[in-house]
Amino acid sequence: MNLDTLLEDFRQGRVDAAELKRQLLGQSMADAGFARVDHHRLLRKGQAEVVFCQGKTPEQVAHIFEALAGRTGRALGTRADAMHFEAVRHMPGAQYDPLSRVLSIETAPIALTGLVAVVSAGTADLPVAEEAARTAEFLGSRVLRRYDCGVAGIHRVLSVLDDLLEARCVVAVAGMDGALPSVVAGLLPAPVIAVPTSVGYGASFGGLAALLTMLNSCASGVCVVNIDNGFGAGYSAHVINAQCEAARKG
Amino acid sequence: MNLDTLLEDFRQGRVDAAELKRQLLGQSMADAGFARVDHHRLLRKGQAEVVFCQGKTPEQVAHIFEALAGRTGRALGTRADAMHFEAVRHMPGAQYDPLSRVLSIETAPIALTGLVAVVSAGTADLPVAEEAARTAEFLGSRVLRRYDCGVAGIHRVLSVLDDLLEARCVVAVAGMDGALPSVVAGLLPAPVIAVPTSVGYGASFGGLAALLTMLNSCASGVCVVNIDNGFGAGYSAHVINAQCEAARKG
Amino acid sequence: MNLDTLLEDFRQGRVDAAELKRQLLGQSMADAGFARVDHHRLLRKGQAEVVFCQGKTPEQVAHIFEALAGRTGRALGTRADAMHFEAVRHMPGAQYDPLSRVLSIETAPIALTGLVAVVSAGTADLPVAEEAARTAEFLGSRVLRRYDCGVAGIHRVLSVLDDLLEARCVVAVAGMDGALPSVVAGLLPAPVIAVPTSVGYGASFGGLAALLTMLNSCASGVCVVNIDNGFGAGYSAHVINAQCEAARKG
Amino acid sequence: MNLDTLLEDFRQGRVDAAELKRQLLGQSMADAGFARVDHHRLLRKGQAEVVFCQGKTPEQVAHIFEALAGRTGRALGTRADAMHFEAVRHMPGAQYDPLSRVLSIETAPIALTGLVAVVSAGTADLPVAEEAARTAEFLGSRVLRRYDCGVAGIHRVLSVLDDLLEARCVVAVAGMDGALPSVVAGLLPAPVIAVPTSVGYGASFGGLAALLTMLNSCASGVCVVNIDNGFGAGYSAHVINAQCEAARKG
Amino acid sequence: MNLDTLLEDFRQGRVDAAELKRQLLGQSMADAGFARVDHHRLLRKGQAEVVFCQGKTPEQVAHIFEALAGRTGRALGTRADAMHFEAVRHMPGAQYDPLSRVLSIETAPIALTGLVAVVSAGTADLPVAEEAARTAEFLGSRVLRRYDCGVAGIHRVLSVLDDLLEARCVVAVAGMDGALPSVVAGLLPAPVIAVPTSVGYGASFGGLAALLTMLNSCASGVCVVNIDNGFGAGYSAHVINAQCEAARKG
Amino acid sequence: MNLDTLLEDFRQGRVDAAELKRQLLGQSMADAGFARVDHHRLLRKGQAEVVFCQGKTPEQVAHIFEALAGRTGRALGTRADAMHFEAVRHMPGAQYDPLSRVLSIETAPIALTGLVAVVSAGTADLPVAEEAARTAEFLGSRVLRRYDCGVAGIHRVLSVLDDLLEARCVVAVAGMDGALPSVVAGLLPAPVIAVPTSVGYGASFGGLAALLTMLNSCASGVCVVNIDNGFGAGYSAHVINAQCEAARKG
Amino acid sequence: MNLDTLLEDFRQGRVDAAELKRQLLGQSMADAGFARVDHHRLLRKGQAEVVFCQGKTPEQVAHIFEALAGRTGRALGTRADAMHFEAVRHMPGAQYDPLSRVLSIETAPIALTGLVAVVSAGTADLPVAEEAARTAEFLGSRVLRRYDCGVAGIHRVLSVLDDLLEARCVVAVAGMDGALPSVVAGLLPAPVIAVPTSVGYGASFGGLAALLTMLNSCASGVCVVNIDNGFGAGYSAHVINAQCEAARKG
Amino acid sequence: MNLDTLLEDFRQGRVDAAELKRQLLGQSMADAGFARVDHHRLLRKGQAEVVFCQGKTPEQVAHIFEALAGRTGRALGTRADAMHFEAVRHMPGAQYDPLSRVLSIETAPIALTGLVAVVSAGTADLPVAEEAARTAEFLGSRVLRRYDCGVAGIHRVLSVLDDLLEARCVVAVAGMDGALPSVVAGLLPAPVIAVPTSVGYGASFGGLAALLTMLNSCASGVCVVNIDNGFGAGYSAHVINAQCEAARKG
Repeated sequence: MNLDTLLEDFRQGRVDAAELKRQLLGQSMADAGFARVDHHRLLRKGQAEVVFCQGKTPEQVAHIFEALAGRTGRALGTRADAMHFEAVRHMPGAQYDPLSRVLSIETAPIALTGLVAVVSAGTADLPVAEEAARTAEFLGSRVLRRYDCGVAGIHRVLSVLDDLLEARCVVAVAGMDGALPSVVAGLLPAPVIAVPTSVGYGASFGGLAALLTMLNSCASGVCVVNIDNGFGAGYSAHVINAQCEAARKG
Repeated sequence: MNLDTLLEDFRQGRVDAAELKRQLLGQSMADAGFARVDHHRLLRKGQAEVVFCQGKTPEQVAHIFEALAGRTGRALGTRADAMHFEAVRHMPGAQYDPLSRVLSIETAPIALTGLVAVVSAGTADLPVAEEAARTAEFLGSRVLRRYDCGVAGIHRVLSVLDDLLEARCVVAVAGMDGALPSVVAGLLPAPVIAVPTSVGYGASFGGLAALLTMLNSCASGVCVVNIDNGFGAGYSAHVINAQCEAARKG
Repeated sequence: MNLDTLLEDFRQGRVDAAELKRQLLGQSMADAGFARVDHHRLLRKGQAEVVFCQGKTPEQVAHIFEALAGRTGRALGTRADAMHFEAVRHMPGAQYDPLSRVLSIETAPIALTGLVAVVSAGTADLPVAEEAARTAEFLGSRVLRRYDCGVAGIHRVLSVLDDLLEARCVVAVAGMDGALPSVVAGLLPAPVIAVPTSVGYGASFGGLAALLTMLNSCASGVCVVNIDNGFGAGYSAHVINAQCEAARKG
Repeated sequence: MNLDTLLEDFRQGRVDAAELKRQLLGQSMADAGFARVDHHRLLRKGQAEVVFCQGKTPEQVAHIFEALAGRTGRALGTRADAMHFEAVRHMPGAQYDPLSRVLSIETAPIALTGLVAVVSAGTADLPVAEEAARTAEFLGSRVLRRYDCGVAGIHRVLSVLDDLLEARCVVAVAGMDGALPSVVAGLLPAPVIAVPTSVGYGASFGGLAALLTMLNSCASGVCVVNIDNGFGAGYSAHVINAQCEAARKG
Repeated sequence: MNLDTLLEDFRQGRVDAAELKRQLLGQSMADAGFARVDHHRLLRKGQAEVVFCQGKTPEQVAHIFEALAGRTGRALGTRADAMHFEAVRHMPGAQYDPLSRVLSIETAPIALTGLVAVVSAGTADLPVAEEAARTAEFLGSRVLRRYDCGVAGIHRVLSVLDDLLEARCVVAVAGMDGALPSVVAGLLPAPVIAVPTSVGYGASFGGLAALLTMLNSCASGVCVVNIDNGFGAGYSAHVINAQCEAARKG
Repeated sequence: MNLDTLLEDFRQGRVDAAELKRQLLGQSMADAGFARVDHHRLLRKGQAEVVFCQGKTPEQVAHIFEALAGRTGRALGTRADAMHFEAVRHMPGAQYDPLSRVLSIETAPIALTGLVAVVSAGTADLPVAEEAARTAEFLGSRVLRRYDCGVAGIHRVLSVLDDLLEARCVVAVAGMDGALPSVVAGLLPAPVIAVPTSVGYGASFGGLAALLTMLNSCASGVCVVNIDNGFGAGYSAHVINAQCEAARKG
Repeated sequence: MNLDTLLEDFRQGRVDAAELKRQLLGQSMADAGFARVDHHRLLRKGQAEVVFCQGKTPEQVAHIFEALAGRTGRALGTRADAMHFEAVRHMPGAQYDPLSRVLSIETAPIALTGLVAVVSAGTADLPVAEEAARTAEFLGSRVLRRYDCGVAGIHRVLSVLDDLLEARCVVAVAGMDGALPSVVAGLLPAPVIAVPTSVGYGASFGGLAALLTMLNSCASGVCVVNIDNGFGAGYSAHVINAQCEAARKG
Repeated sequence: MNLDTLLEDFRQGRVDAAELKRQLLGQSMADAGFARVDHHRLLRKGQAEVVFCQGKTPEQVAHIFEALAGRTGRALGTRADAMHFEAVRHMPGAQYDPLSRVLSIETAPIALTGLVAVVSAGTADLPVAEEAARTAEFLGSRVLRRYDCGVAGIHRVLSVLDDLLEARCVVAVAGMDGALPSVVAGLLPAPVIAVPTSVGYGASFGGLAALLTMLNSCASGVCVVNIDNGFGAGYSAHVINAQCEAARKG
């Protein structure tokens, strides 16, 4: 690595301090920064990046999947369509879930630890909820799913409360009025990650109504991700779970 | 009345059919229309118009109140401030509620029939809830108030359910996430009139968040009035109650 | 039912008070709540839920329709397309209206009582108006339809006034400027449920213009449902009518 | 004038064609353009510019008024406040209308020709309506005022129809639901200039609701000016009237 | 006609005054109103309604066209597509302009009087400009077209000024920044009707940018119609022209 | 407690199963629910509710503070002003921070465990950042503050990275472009709670720009709270920290 | 040219000064203006206009390209699709880049001078970045491309800093949170032109989020073009570079 | 400096390479980065930061001004009010311009080089235009001011064209319809920085209308800064000018 070379040159007197500082603060600093971040990523996740497939060609996705799975035996793609799946189908362990549009390879499985819960309001919210669930699972969390718990039938929420009490973090997915996270967060001690969905019509404005509802939740302990961003919610939920797991291990 | 005169002139031949039609379809039709509407108003409400005080001078409000109360012994003003009250204070029976900003005279009381319920989410929603309640009462409905029932503590909603079961119409008032009407309408058979309030900050956008929540309610039987429009909700609730009362009487 | 079992166990001493309370307040409470709500639904409607078909597969819709119609002889689906109809066509009494996209089975007809009126502004508003009308009819209201009554030809509104006077609730459907409910509510004593439609172009913003018009109606007694939400309006109108009917019966 | 000098220089051969063109197309062209426009302004209006006082200091307004009135005996200011009036009060003929916030000097009166009508919906729309009316009058139109004609009492509109039939152009001013222009344009042959006002609250969004209503009017012959822009409406109405007057005179 | 019958019955004593008034103020009044408006329409336009084809089936359009052309020898449809044209093609004189999507029959031509000018900014604004031009022509105005006059090349606007000076009303069509009407109105005495188009991308938001520009025009004498509403602009321009023509004729 | 009484009555046969169920499912169920939630609150937080002071009178705040502090020796109020402080000043241990507008009493201190970091972009974001920090501290988290780390000087962010690595959760506060959370989340493994502030002008639209930036963060592991909602961020950060602490303790 | 003729006529006395001025200030002035602007365009760019192909037919594009390339040997089209390419494919030197949708002919190459840098955040921003790069190159700038430098991996930005230091102007392209320009402008002395892209989903609102981020950049020296407007950014960057080049040459 | 110490320790063997890299990549890297940026700032500007006074106390502003002016003899503050001026008034050379709200100390004047032009549309845009002008002057540009050039009187723009031709960069400031930059950029070769102002009312929405106009400019070479951001425009204009100056000097 050129940072090592540079440092050695400096120690040997082939490069003076002024030149070293210039190099460190210029382009070479960033290279160093790059190594550092990569290192972090390995330390904290034990896996490679997640691929956002939408807008990428099947060939591009296949190329990245081959690189990732070849190195780590694992790869995760979100917002994939059937064409993307076709392009990676030949790879060992390739799996595709059309509902959540999640594409994955897990030939090197990892142990799941800690519990994340995913609750959702209506049937139409399932794809987003399932994207959150599968993301958290892929990253290493156990996931409890409780779907179809809209607040219009409040008993449906109440009936799953006991199940949710064990979770370290709860992902609450809802479209239309987006009221589910407020009710859930009012009943549970865990942090709640609210995911508005674009489910609805008319003045739901593609999920804006649910997004605003959640940002204005009257319950404490709610934070929000982008509309339909199941991946982001699953990712954050896993990160919280992983922090707990790290604390547990000391 | 000039319609009578006109018709008599026509019958007497002093006005021919062409002229009569011209008159009927022009300005005189509207005069007739005016009488008709007035008549309706008397028949169905037994009282005069409600005065929206905001933007009117105290003198204007006093002038209208004198006309109304002088004729019917009753007058209702909304969005009134202390100055408006000062201007009508000398009138017998003048009352002012600073919380809801309702100004009223009821020297000729009317019997209250049927039940309208008003539920609200937070303390800050009280002015709007109270405006709804007092409007419905003034118009002739009995009103049941259940305040501070936000969904973040869902038990608070559940604890007042039995009370609400008797109501012919429920007004549900909420700011912030505006989730209360969805929960209430999911639990009750009565029609629910949802009132978003401008309570909140940041991305509540002056009540827009709550308004959109309510328009997108996942529960059936919810309809919505304008932000902070307690008067409109109380008015509609009374009208529904009055329709029921009319049906009851046959 | 497990609530009964639990209570009997408690009475027999097989379960102590602490355990009973834990059960009641935890998951089992919700089960109880579920039963209660179901009971309500039967008491007040005599029928099953309405199915929002959009976003559901034809198979899912067929599955739900079979369950509903099998139990009650009745089923209603909104926002259905031709594919949904194909999937339920084999069921006795299956009917589909392409204009309003309403799918229904009524092998067990119910008596229609009370009158709901549906008025609409333009030809393009017909699908939404008809969804409202068919919803209210399915739920048990008689429905009077008066279409093509836009305010640009005010005489068209005036000409149907007498017809509307009998209705317990009026649904007013309009796109573009959305002015119809204001005019109707200014002329009638009945509660008016305003339905904005997405009919229009340019700065109608998919119905937002009409929605705002209706929320800001200068006439009293108007409340509003979501854009294009004919179902919601028909549902609320029927609920109001049903409250009147209940009052009539005592 | 330097254009004359330049042309003479060219004719005398002191300036060649290339230089002349350079001059004509550069800065000097604009000076010529300036003269031309000024000339137009005199030809078509017989008066000076209108002063938008808001945001100007009283001293600035007084300075401009002195220049205008000194030259033409006439000056018009809009959105003026009491301080502006104080600054011009000493000038002969200075008048101020606090309602419409119009400040004017008309020591050299002009003959009013043709008729413009201004109708408005509610009491709170009066300032804007009056600004429109006074602007049109100042510019030379006769003005017919018909205020408080909101569509919630449709008879009020109908009762003034005959009066409006004579007008060459109708200005229709309304806040809240902004439905008045649709009704008026549906009943009259004249062009209608719709003025949304910021009157309303909640989801009126400072006049946006009324603005959208008017842009989406279901009646033909409506065009719209900015929110609260009484001046713009009065100006356009007068221009239309003036075009008619010019046509009448041949 | 039943109004005549009713009046005769009243004169003959077969109907008393109370009943007559009830009839006049109820449904029958509106029938009368209908006749009156129709009468007006004939008096002032000499032609039938304009058909907004979009959202109507080819059969519906053909049906209306047959009724209109059969009675008056004239019919105008806007937003028509090729299918609509196919459905009316068999009718004598049926013409279709694919650019402006205007469908028309003019077997009974009318004389064109007065001049309306239509100017537009870019090539992409042509369909809207042409819809305005053809609407005004159909209604009876002579139309001067000056296209591709965007303000980014201000000389293009200046070069057509002299042509525009004769027009009684100018329609200015522009998308993107929508600046054309401001420049035109600053240079001409005629009223300017500004038409924002949905031409543009990114933050043009489907014409919203141009709409707001035009509503905020710094030039006096500009009023605005809805986005892409060439018909509305052409209609209003003709109405203004017709008012001038009426004034000219006395 | 009445639930106990009811159950005993049931066991003794003084109440039958039908009545018991009616009571459990009606008003009394909610009372039970209330107790349950209270119990939870004590178990997980060891303290009472947080008081949102804005919109409450000083007397109301004092009343609640007396109740809370009297019972637990602790009370926290947010968005308090100087008047609120005056009203509670007489209470032992009352403290007020004018910058963050946090009002508190901590006569019964609690041990702080775990680390939450709060980073902010500009000086003007300090009040919100400090509200987050003080909320998390009050609830029991140790808090590391690193302010004035805007991304326009990226070195300022990089210079505090090592400090942030220890935190279980990072709150990132920024107005204007709101870019800080993206950069922080790209560099750290901890979950990041992004708080947009209303700092900015023009097209920041009161924090909307920063809110949208954060919702669209290109970095994983970011979730968002409402504009200026320092309390919400501090609360969620503490809840995440508390989950970690609970995991650590097993 | 008629300006020459006119001037000669004037010099010869065939036209007097009054007529000359009338002509100059009327239609003929604009013709002159047209020539002037064309002249400017040649002087400052050495090339013809750029063609916005979207919305134009392949035939129209081919027609313009033939005119441009025939005269200057150069032509540039943006937002072209494969059909446009087909229509010009027969022309010598015709090239099409499907990624950026840029269509060009450069049979008469020009020397590239000065350096413009284009940096972009994500893979999906490439089309816009490449449109900017190719536009600047076509106009005569050397272009340095540095793509995939999103701020979520800040090291990627830092690693290209030294490369960017030479550029006279930097175009920074980003979707989603749009944070890249803030970071770049904080690190570099060059002017930064920020281009928001419509890349993203949910609350990115088609690039609005990135647009607002950039308008609110906390770094100085950033200005912004429309969403996805790579052409505009490349054009402005070249213009800045060209100003520098002109300064360099004196 | 600790970077020097660290490097020396490394060269002396007191710190090994691993530790050095850890230090460089962690907190110490940023310190180095800080120095680097400072160095850049001195090299390219010869002056200190600009102070955004709004939201800072007079004491804070005075403190920063003393530090800046003490070191460099120069300081610039924007959005300052009279209180800020009072706090720095005692410092030698302190000056305050109430119109632009610019506060400055220039006891160490710098030579002005190159020309930046600032044009503005209306009188009310003056404060923003003047903020831009004074910012550019303070930073070292000569500034040409041409105010009151709104496009409603296009001759006013044309008359200043020749003056603007010398400028290396033009700042165009406009509120209301924001059309000025389009016209200016259509006439000039220089880059145009457009500044929308919040001048206007109604549907100008605080400058949003002008902002959208400018982002959608039909002229090439326009880029945009935030609403009312005169400082940002002046800063960017100076940066462009400085790039030209640097190119001139080689």
